[in-house]
Amino acid sequence: MKAEIISVGTELLLGEIVDTSTPFIAQHLANLGIDVYFTATVGDNPERLATTIHRAAQRSDLVVLTGGLVPTEDDLTKKILAKVVQRPLVAEPESMTKIKTFYAETKRPQPIHADLMGEIIAGATVLPNEVGFAVGMLLTTEQCRYLVLPVPPTELQPMFEKEAEPRLAQLMQSGQVIKSRVMRFFGIGEPALEDCLHSLIAGQQNPTLATYAKQNEVTLRITASGSNEGTVVQLLDETEQQVLHLAGQYFYGYGDDNSLEQVVVHLLQRRQLTITAAESLTSGLFQSTLANVAGASQIFSGGFVTYAAAAKEQLVNVPVTTIAAHGVVSKETAIAMATGAQRQLQTDLAISFTGVAGPDELEGHPAGFFWIGLSLPDGRVLTKSFQFSGSRNAVRDYAVKSGLKLIYDQFQG
Amino acid sequence: MKAEIISVGTELLLGEIVDTSTPFIAQHLANLGIDVYFTATVGDNPERLATTIHRAAQRSDLVVLTGGLVPTEDDLTKKILAKVVQRPLVAEPESMTKIKTFYAETKRPQPIHADLMGEIIAGATVLPNEVGFAVGMLLTTEQCRYLVLPVPPTELQPMFEKEAEPRLAQLMQSGQVIKSRVMRFFGIGEPALEDCLHSLIAGQQNPTLATYAKQNEVTLRITASGSNEGTVVQLLDETEQQVLHLAGQYFYGYGDDNSLEQVVVHLLQRRQLTITAAESLTSGLFQSTLANVAGASQIFSGGFVTYAAAAKEQLVNVPVTTIAAHGVVSKETAIAMATGAQRQLQTDLAISFTGVAGPDELEGHPAGFFWIGLSLPDGRVLTKSFQFSGSRNAVRDYAVKSGLKLIYDQFQG
Repeated sequence: MKAEIISVGTELLLGEIVDTSTPFIAQHLANLGIDVYFTATVGDNPERLATTIHRAAQRSDLVVLTGGLVPTEDDLTKKILAKVVQRPLVAEPESMTKIKTFYAETKRPQPIHADLMGEIIAGATVLPNEVGFAVGMLLTTEQCRYLVLPVPPTELQPMFEKEAEPRLAQLMQSGQVIKSRVMRFFGIGEPALEDCLHSLIAGQQNPTLATYAKQNEVTLRITASGSNEGTVVQLLDETEQQVLHLAGQYFYGYGDDNSLEQVVVHLLQRRQLTITAAESLTSGLFQSTLANVAGASQIFSGGFVTYAAAAKEQLVNVPVTTIAAHGVVSKETAIAMATGAQRQLQTDLAISFTGVAGPDELEGHPAGFFWIGLSLPDGRVLTKSFQFSGSRNAVRDYAVKSGLKLIYDQFQG
Repeated sequence: MKAEIISVGTELLLGEIVDTSTPFIAQHLANLGIDVYFTATVGDNPERLATTIHRAAQRSDLVVLTGGLVPTEDDLTKKILAKVVQRPLVAEPESMTKIKTFYAETKRPQPIHADLMGEIIAGATVLPNEVGFAVGMLLTTEQCRYLVLPVPPTELQPMFEKEAEPRLAQLMQSGQVIKSRVMRFFGIGEPALEDCLHSLIAGQQNPTLATYAKQNEVTLRITASGSNEGTVVQLLDETEQQVLHLAGQYFYGYGDDNSLEQVVVHLLQRRQLTITAAESLTSGLFQSTLANVAGASQIFSGGFVTYAAAAKEQLVNVPVTTIAAHGVVSKETAIAMATGAQRQLQTDLAISFTGVAGPDELEGHPAGFFWIGLSLPDGRVLTKSFQFSGSRNAVRDYAVKSGLKLIYDQFQG
């Protein structure tokens, strides 16, 4: 089934409101296996609305209309749709009673035309509105089906989920199960991940794979369908294995609401490892990022921002001679920062960041160059240098995520 | 001028992403006096995209296309538009160099087709991308004008405001001078600022006033037009004075690219005042925010993240008795943290943050409650308590901005 969503309202064209209803409907239709090929927004203009509905009806099986159901002067979806399908509007008795009762009981004056909200197009199935007065409709004509919904999300969402979705599912009569899995990657860009997964993405059918770029990371959504849950999960598992085989070194977790800091804080909690930090380049951003996660205090009690050389010496005892001999942006200083912080707070782990946020270079290193030191419980210190390109904030975000990934790689599994 | 906005991307049709770019563009076009009659979303399908562009070109003077500029397999806006207008794609040398340099410097493998991001349609004006690689274009053909923009808001918004808007404004006006001034406010919400400025906003014509909600702050764009620069600047100055009269206590600076941290770092640089911090609630976010500003090292050498009580005692010498008597979230602890940090690093100022990020309450204080201490050069310590409502990150962002505003209020003027 091919669907098209049309939002009606001049306020949408003025950009005064962000349309969250269209993605809500689109996502639910996708889950039902209904393909959305177009969405459109049109203002409160009779002629342009009629043209838009006409064209949609020609090329789609289902036309979803939102908005324009409240009878103020500029709302007209039902009136225009009635004209397009050449059917009259008729009163829907239950809704009419509900409207009259409300105004009588609350002793408010009933607005002119309020009863228009209880009208439907002849032959349509009424979709009751549990929150407001404007009823929805599912209308089947020879040409196509129309689903008419109110625009406020508080009215639209329950009406869609309780009234429209079961009816559409019945129409689809597929009995198909559809499931998605989101995998998260760091250290590789979106185009490079697509290159890497080319053999899976090219010619994909079931499951489908789609990548999305986030700030300095990439997610991959794998969506599979099948006749039962077992088959679908197996398809997802198999594809995940293939993905891990090709790009496993960049993978760190699952889910849309996940993050590197969540994964790392939970990992350290499970392993009962405490951590501190001495931050130069990142100036507190690593520690602040850890504290994004509720419960981070179990593994993190505090740490140091050592922005200037003097603070490195005073707060975490980096020897003056180390800085003099190797510079602030060096492997040796990164090691001294990490071990110094670890000694000060007696933690299992300590991480350090020293580098060049930019825009200017420092000690001969270009903007975006940095060292990370990770001091381990057994006294070893891992070090790694990075070269990134971007704004100050992008460099620092990348550095923090690189540090988290370093910890993840060390302790996962 | 009639405009139409087309968003390209199957992920939009699947409802996985809410399209905030279309309302952003629509609002800015409305401010320029350009009417938007239709918006549409179409998936990554060559045929349907071509049809959609064709129809838009027939009925509109300006067709704005967003998305589909990154050369992964499913992105194709430029290719299809080139076909529609029957012009070739050509390399844009500056962008090509930028892309090659990035991959060379960062030693990452350059993805296949990465250089396609530096291609433009022959004859188009290049709109540089200061954040990413995908360049934008303004293309004038006999039939209509096309504006092609990247989809991530971080790339689209600066490109639109800095590159596209001035050119469109020029197209709209002949001989008219149009100037905007952006004023920034903290400590007041967007609806409250609108109420506060109601007398100016109601019945506005020239200048026009528009408020925009940002994360925990609000900007106000005043736009005036007139026959010459002098008149326009005078209009802006007069309106600014009225705005300051009504809402001056929340104002802190000018400009789209400005921020509280920039204003405060520059203020401290001018006054030659050094600062440090002891952060509990904010866990390094204040110090990280200071370091957003290039040159922050002139006034900031480092500081402390004192997340747990033990770290407050060990790192900035908060007396055990203070915490025992008043609790961690108290005026007294805030004072001890600030003065302790100031003594440790011998700075002119020191700021402290202690409070409840949530979701759980702490010491009987609800989530969102916090104290800030600001230790001054003369030994006085300002303290202020706040109650905010929001997620952990929103609370911490609000706390950092409240601290910056406290410093601004103390030293500005």
